[in-house]
Parts: sequence; structure tokens; C-alpha cells
Amino acid sequence: MRPQDLIEKKRDRRELTRDEIAFLIRGYTRDEIPDYQMAAWLMAVFLNGLDEAETRALVEEMLHSGEVLVHPEVAAPKVDKHSTGGVGDKTSLVVAPVAAACGVAVPMISGRALAHTGGTLDKLEAIPGFRTDLSLAEFRAVLARCGLALTGQTREIAPADRKLYALRDLTATVPCRPLICASIMSKKLAEGIDGLVLDVKVGSGAFMREPDDARQLAAMLTGVGRSMGKRVVALVTEMGQPLGRAVGNAVETAEAIATLRGDLAGDFAELCLELAAQMLVVGGVVADREAGRGRARAAIDSGAALERFRAVVEAQGGDPRVLDDPGLLPRARGEAEITAERAGFVSGIAADEIGRIVMDWGGGRRRLGEKIDFGVGLRVHAKLGDEVRVGDPLATAYFNDEARLGEMSARLRAAYTFAGAPPDPAPLVKEIII
Amino acid sequence: MRPQDLIEKKRDRRELTRDEIAFLIRGYTRDEIPDYQMAAWLMAVFLNGLDEAETRALVEEMLHSGEVLVHPEVAAPKVDKHSTGGVGDKTSLVVAPVAAACGVAVPMISGRALAHTGGTLDKLEAIPGFRTDLSLAEFRAVLARCGLALTGQTREIAPADRKLYALRDLTATVPCRPLICASIMSKKLAEGIDGLVLDVKVGSGAFMREPDDARQLAAMLTGVGRSMGKRVVALVTEMGQPLGRAVGNAVETAEAIATLRGDLAGDFAELCLELAAQMLVVGGVVADREAGRGRARAAIDSGAALERFRAVVEAQGGDPRVLDDPGLLPRARGEAEITAERAGFVSGIAADEIGRIVMDWGGGRRRLGEKIDFGVGLRVHAKLGDEVRVGDPLATAYFNDEARLGEMSARLRAAYTFAGAPPDPAPLVKEIII
Repeated sequence: MRPQDLIEKKRDRRELTRDEIAFLIRGYTRDEIPDYQMAAWLMAVFLNGLDEAETRALVEEMLHSGEVLVHPEVAAPKVDKHSTGGVGDKTSLVVAPVAAACGVAVPMISGRALAHTGGTLDKLEAIPGFRTDLSLAEFRAVLARCGLALTGQTREIAPADRKLYALRDLTATVPCRPLICASIMSKKLAEGIDGLVLDVKVGSGAFMREPDDARQLAAMLTGVGRSMGKRVVALVTEMGQPLGRAVGNAVETAEAIATLRGDLAGDFAELCLELAAQMLVVGGVVADREAGRGRARAAIDSGAALERFRAVVEAQGGDPRVLDDPGLLPRARGEAEITAERAGFVSGIAADEIGRIVMDWGGGRRRLGEKIDFGVGLRVHAKLGDEVRVGDPLATAYFNDEARLGEMSARLRAAYTFAGAPPDPAPLVKEIII
Repeated sequence: MRPQDLIEKKRDRRELTRDEIAFLIRGYTRDEIPDYQMAAWLMAVFLNGLDEAETRALVEEMLHSGEVLVHPEVAAPKVDKHSTGGVGDKTSLVVAPVAAACGVAVPMISGRALAHTGGTLDKLEAIPGFRTDLSLAEFRAVLARCGLALTGQTREIAPADRKLYALRDLTATVPCRPLICASIMSKKLAEGIDGLVLDVKVGSGAFMREPDDARQLAAMLTGVGRSMGKRVVALVTEMGQPLGRAVGNAVETAEAIATLRGDLAGDFAELCLELAAQMLVVGGVVADREAGRGRARAAIDSGAALERFRAVVEAQGGDPRVLDDPGLLPRARGEAEITAERAGFVSGIAADEIGRIVMDWGGGRRRLGEKIDFGVGLRVHAKLGDEVRVGDPLATAYFNDEARLGEMSARLRAAYTFAGAPPDPAPLVKEIII
């Protein structure tokens, strides 16, 4: 078998066999197939697609390119949650301890911020001392002790995905459904889970702009998961504006802590309850979504979820005092209110631009490996449908580079559109695909 | 500008500007853009195409990635001929000295065999001592002295094409019209020519199987050449069977010498006369094709063309005695007739398979850098339309690996199809595009 013949096959829209996909992924993981052949193949896949069998083969080969965890010492059902990425999406910090407090173990391997979207690892690292580079042994020990563990992808987990993801990022082959599906599922299935809740985001702050695309990805993800014996549910959720109020690492961590402390107002807490409820359903600890929401809410109200988060922060080296005093989180030197120069009802927010403002100001990452300024961020005051007068605050900005305040204020204002009447509210959860 | 943004643009079928193509080609030539980004871009180009302006920009950037020769010491019009590659195509060895003998200077930079098609350089190197690695100074000196010079692509000529061609070969992006066009024209225009005759081959032995594809490539090549101020004519010619009788390096060189010595029977000599005539027309030394054919024929009859070839062989270090005694050319140890096991009129010959038989027996190259056995080849006896009885010879094989004789004989027989009546003869020159 030669890589160029398999590239040609996909170039010509022919279906690859399981063995052919195995040859490509194994050869690439072992550095026997060079980046340039894989790059050509990825572009052919981007433009010509992969069918269901090919996608499943790709997931399985990427999954088995590394270790697949098992957790015999954990009796509880193991369920994870994964989001396709959005702006202001800090749900993992809430739903993982909530689910753990309700009797579901959460072995969560997360990613970092890239482009305009945030990454759970960066938000966790905003907590002084918090380690996201656990060894697999440490990861399993934390999971057994706390009922949840939160770490980054290690060398042992899906190494094919690590290589492919870096290559896709540089070859314009990221937004491709079967490749996204294989990347997500190979990592998640390697965690040793029984079930998975997927949050497929759609809108201006998501990688997918069209509900149809999101729906198709959700169907692909659930189909692949189910074919591999897992219980999987996917929610297609609204990402037409920043989720919650905080965008940026430390401010988002603070918002997640406030939610765990019982502040359940707004879209962010609503989505947390919904996702946690689905995790409990998938884990089999409640009969239905309604019961799951009740259990999740009770875990917050009782403080049990916050105590789980405190346990995992301590276990992973973080300073648990931030849970009681968010003022201990990193904070940028500068703070300014950015006010409206136009009046009206907020009819649109370019959420990707909000994410990019934070990124460009130092709070995100334009390329892999860039350092992040955890204290940089925005607190969004005007959300979709809010009525705004001239001079009302749109957002509070936290920054270190004051020279860019004028530019960033202008960009933030330009990210808002206004109308004479509030828009029809979009449902937060658009669809549930089981 | 970032390469990944330009990859994305082509991925999404958007047109690249001249500056963007310049950025890609210059960056790649200087090793600033890595192979893997270029490979993704090439696949996007393969699947989404380049328009006329993009193709012209690509040609110009590839051309100016290296030196563009001028020949102030040569007064004669400078014209080259280029073939898109076929099986048994040794026309360059005949038309270059014929044209030179008729007053057109031929600065020919040629390529090597790849896949089932032969390469002029390898046929020349079958002549003991013949050097195809002239420096540019040597190349120009030989051209001034002999009226023709025959060499390989140097480091100075279109380095972007050298890098891109090697990459295309390994990423299944070779058979793509705009890329083929840019590869051919960037090299040919760097030779310092006033005009060019293109032999675009179509049929089972060519890279293009469909006359429409060949016609479109021919139109693209002539259009690009003309837009750059050159006189260009393209012939679409038949490659539905091996050209002439010889396939393999030394046997093809012998056939070319026989033609220069006056053996003008058959399709090979016919195509040589046609191409040489077109070179004389393009060079402006004759008024029309008919006059050109007459001049070409006279140059062969008088021995002037043979003497030009002798001069260039001597000038480039080759043994000129092979012109008088082809027995001095390399010859494989084994020789066998492969006979027909079925009777009928030859109705089809899989010319690519004929080429691959020679290649697989050691007479060609499966990848760049492989060594060639010059003495290996076939002499084809049964051509399209010939009537064959059981036991008649289809071809004579020259080989060193006798163990494969059975396998190769079977493959050769399988490359022939027979019918009860001769097929309609296909015209050798299907179209002339001026």
C-alpha cells in the first residue's frame, strides 16, 4: 500500500477500506507517512467527505493509536460532557462537579483555547497552582478520590489526533464534520467512559453557523458513539451571543464558581443544569431530564457540587481559597466600561468578534503554544434583547494593554447591532439528538 | 499573509490574487512555507481548479523563481518542442537535430521517465558517455556551437517547479491541467525560446485519456504562451498505442537514429516530420507546414540532421560511433519473442501497460532517483490494425531478469485486444491548436 494511492482514491471520491484507513493513521502516528501526504489527504477528505463506515474506521484507528483507559476502581457510571466550542463557554467547570456530586464519575480530558473560542484547561489554570498535566496514573487516582478529574490530553491518549489536529490547524482543514467527529470521539472514548453528552454549538460564536451543519455533526457523533457501545446524547445549543456574562479565563472561572455557589440566573446556569441533567440520564442515575435537573439543582443548593470542585482543585494542586474569594484569581491591571453610542434593543452580537477581542488583547491564543494572560477578559452587560440607551455600559473590560482600549472599544461596539424592538428569543437548546 | 488563509480561500473556491500566488510560490521556493501547507493547497487546486488569471500568475511566478535564459550569441530563432509524455515517444531525439539542421536553434531542457512514460534524458543517457547535466554555461555554449543542446533541468531553472513536481508526485496531484500547464510552461519559457511546439498526447499511453481533456490542456498551454509573447502551436496527437516500434531506452535511441538515417516508414517518423515542420513554421523559417515537411525531409535525406545529432553527441561527451553502429548501445542479455495466442486484427493496445512492462522489468522508474536498466525494452511487431495469426510475434523482449519472462509475456498478451476486422484508423494528429 502507498499513501499516494490512498490520497488518489479519496481525491477521486472513492471509498477507503478499514485497512486503508488503518494504514494511513498508523503510518502517520509512527512518523512513517510524512505531514505533506497527510495534508493532501486531509484536504481531499475536506472536499470529498468520508462516509459513515470510513468515519467510524477513522475514529477507531485514532482511538487505538494510544491508550484507552479503564477505571476498574470506580464503581459509578462514567460520563463526560464535551462542547464543540463557543465564546464564554465555561460549563465544564460547573457540570463536572455537579454530576460528580450526583453519583456520576467524570473523567474529563479537555482542550485549550484556539481562535476565538475558549478552552477548559486555560480556565482551570487561571486558578493559581492548578495542574492540568496529570499523568494517567494521577488522573485515575484523582477520579477515584473525587469522582471527577480534569486534565489535558497526554501523549498516551489518541496521539494520532494530537498530530492530526496540529496539522489541520495549519492546512485549513479544521471545519470538516468527519474530521471533527473523529477528533472528538477518539479522545473522549479513550477516557474510559460509559456515556457522553455532547454540546454542539451553533451561531456566531461557534465553529458552525448553520443549524443544519450542527444537526448533522450531532447525528454523526451520536451514531459513531452508539456504534461503539456508548450511551450518547447530543444537544444542539445556541451560540449566537456569549454564553453567560464573562468572556476570558479568570472572569469565566469566577462566573463558574458563582454558579456553583448558587447564582442560577441567566442562560449560562440554565445550560449547566440542562447538560448536568443529561449526564445523569446517560449515567442511569435518574430516569429522565426533569429528575436530572432537580438533582443537579439540589447538588448546587446543598453546596455538594461546590465541595466536589473544592476537592478536585485541592487534589490537582490548585488554591482552593479562590472558591471563597474570587478576588484571588488573576486580574488585569486596567478596567474600563465600554458604553453604547447607539440606543435600541440588542438584536445581534457577533460572538466570535467578542472572543477575538479578548484573544487579541492577550486573553487567548492565536496559535498553539502562545502564552495567555489569564486576567484579561470582558464582562458583558448587554445581552440579546436588552434595551440599551446611549451611555449605558455594553461591557466591562479587564486589560493590561491600555494603548489598545480605543481600538477594542470600537470593535466591541461594532460587534453589536440594535433594532427598534427586541428580537424573538432563540431557544437555548435547539434540539436533543438521542 | 498566512499560507493557511490562502489554502482556505482556494478550498472555498475563491480566486487568488497575483500577490497571493506570488506569496505562496516565493515562500515555498525559499523553504519558508512547509511542504504540508503546499500539499494541502495543491489538493485544493486539484479539486477546485485555477482560472486563467491564476494559472498565468502561477506560470509567471514559477518561471521567475529561477533564471530565465537569453541567448544573445545565437542569431537563429529559438524554438523548442515539448511532449506531455507517451509510450515509445522518442521524437525529441529526431526533431531537435532536424530543426537545427533547418536553421532553428533548439535549447531543449528535458525530463526523465516517470511512471509508464519515457523521458528524453534517459534515452540520451543510453548513449555511452552522453552528459545531460550541463551547466547553464555549457548548455549555452553547446547551443551556440551545434544549433541544439539537450540537457536536464538545472538548479537554476524554475526551482519552484522542481520542488512542486516532486511534491505533486507524492500527493496524487499530478494530473491537474493548471498545474501541468504551469510546470511545462515555467520550464520551457525559462529556456530563452521565441516559440514552442507542444505535442499533447491522448489515449491509453498518455496521461490524458479523453480528447476533450487534451484539447483543453492544449488551449490552456497555447493561451498562456501567447499571453507571454511567444509563438506557440499545440498538436493533439494519438497515443492509443506505442509510438513507433521501440519501447525502452536504448531500443528507442536506436529507432531514433534509424529515423535520422532515413528510415521514414511508420507513425513515428510521420510524427517527427509533422512536429519538425511545425517548429520551422513557428521559427519563421518556412511559410507553412507543407514547406516545413519538405525541409525536414530534405535535412534527413541529405544527412544534415544526422550530422547535427553527431555534433551534439560529441559536444555533450557521448560516443558518436553509436550513430553508425547501434550495436554499441547497451543491450540486455536476454532476448525472446512473445507470440500471439489468439488470432485476429489488433483492435486495441493498452499502451500504458506496455510502458509499465518495460518499467517493471527495470527499464523505467517507479520513483524519482531509481536506477534504469537502459538495455531493457520491447520491440513491438503487431500494431493497431495488423492481422495476427496464432504464433505470430507480438513483440521482441530484451531483458535481464529472465525469471519474469512468463509473467511479462502474459501481461503483454493481455495488453492486446483483437477483433474480426481492423478498426478504423485513428488520425495521428487529431487537432492543431494555434
